[in-house]
Amino acid sequence: MHPTEFTASFHQELEKLFLWRRDVRHFRTEPLPEELLDKLLNYAWMAPSVGLSEPWRFMRVDTPKYKHAIYEEFKRCNQEARNRYTSEKAEHYAKLKLAGLDDAPHHIAVFSEHNPEQGHGVGRQTMPETTLYSTVMAIFSFWLAARSYGVGVGWVSILDPQKVCAILETPKNWKFVAYLCVGYPKTLDDTPELERLGWEKRNLTHKKWFRI
Amino acid sequence: MHPTEFTASFHQELEKLFLWRRDVRHFRTEPLPEELLDKLLNYAWMAPSVGLSEPWRFMRVDTPKYKHAIYEEFKRCNQEARNRYTSEKAEHYAKLKLAGLDDAPHHIAVFSEHNPEQGHGVGRQTMPETTLYSTVMAIFSFWLAARSYGVGVGWVSILDPQKVCAILETPKNWKFVAYLCVGYPKTLDDTPELERLGWEKRNLTHKKWFRI
Repeated sequence: MHPTEFTASFHQELEKLFLWRRDVRHFRTEPLPEELLDKLLNYAWMAPSVGLSEPWRFMRVDTPKYKHAIYEEFKRCNQEARNRYTSEKAEHYAKLKLAGLDDAPHHIAVFSEHNPEQGHGVGRQTMPETTLYSTVMAIFSFWLAARSYGVGVGWVSILDPQKVCAILETPKNWKFVAYLCVGYPKTLDDTPELERLGWEKRNLTHKKWFRI
Repeated sequence: MHPTEFTASFHQELEKLFLWRRDVRHFRTEPLPEELLDKLLNYAWMAPSVGLSEPWRFMRVDTPKYKHAIYEEFKRCNQEARNRYTSEKAEHYAKLKLAGLDDAPHHIAVFSEHNPEQGHGVGRQTMPETTLYSTVMAIFSFWLAARSYGVGVGWVSILDPQKVCAILETPKNWKFVAYLCVGYPKTLDDTPELERLGWEKRNLTHKKWFRI
């Protein structure tokens, strides 16, 4: 069998992987083995990138003072976000746990290098945002691989990007893309938490093609 | 076995999937079965999205006049891109085949709805770009699933987003993210085409963590 052929049983498992992948906000606190984290980073590295530019920069945030500063910044942004809703929705919002920053054993900040030399600009002259998109695919590769090893990932976006860059003292040409909470999840589910909690539900109309 | 547990053999296959996924620019012209295309769209639909906003809009471009107009627009942008390189690199650039628009049996344009009502804004008040990132993860889900079924995907980004929206007459609040060529690939490879052709190579330093 050629290595690019996959069996029906692989297809079933792959679908299961997609179905049970969640954005995790409740973690057990024990750390992952270092070699597992390295393995997951290797999946990220296999992601596609525009012009082979590989613009992603994965940063482990291990020092307590930085983790704490990010958590405080999240709480500030989350409070501001809540204030934008009217009363009933604001109450519901306040009950959502939107990040596992308090319990996840690993924090990983992901940045994208702006206009990297690597790739010599191929494919991004009319759409420079494709470097960001490449970084997103690296994150999603990490996320899917993590789920396959029983590891949960939560993508925190309730943060001010400029503040994150200032806190983590990143180079000027790095753009903040995601702050990942990583660890073993407390629970498993095939339904998004926002759906279980009645905030929003999946929309079946997006299973259909638009056509022209 | 709990459905979220995966075997060692699944891990090997998953790594193979990532390793052999390519950005494909050379296609056989026979079309895919419609039910396979629908199945791949279903994988896209399982992607994560900020606040469960599901902002992706997948459009099949089947009408020859639209496919032709996009191909012409690509050729214009590609010529402009080439003109920005100095002589030797421009010559090399001209030899690269950067899109399969001429032979791929299926063209799929992917857009992202700006500020969709779905999701009630959760998770994107400080980072509205996360709706675009959700759409990118839907595209990558489609791409990985396609590879597992022997189907190649090529992401064309050498296009002017405003021109694409004008050609395809999309709603004003849709932002163009990707134009996908889809079909059975002519060849299979575990090495990116840009690396095989000496344009750029993968950078092993990106297999390492930054740390703070």
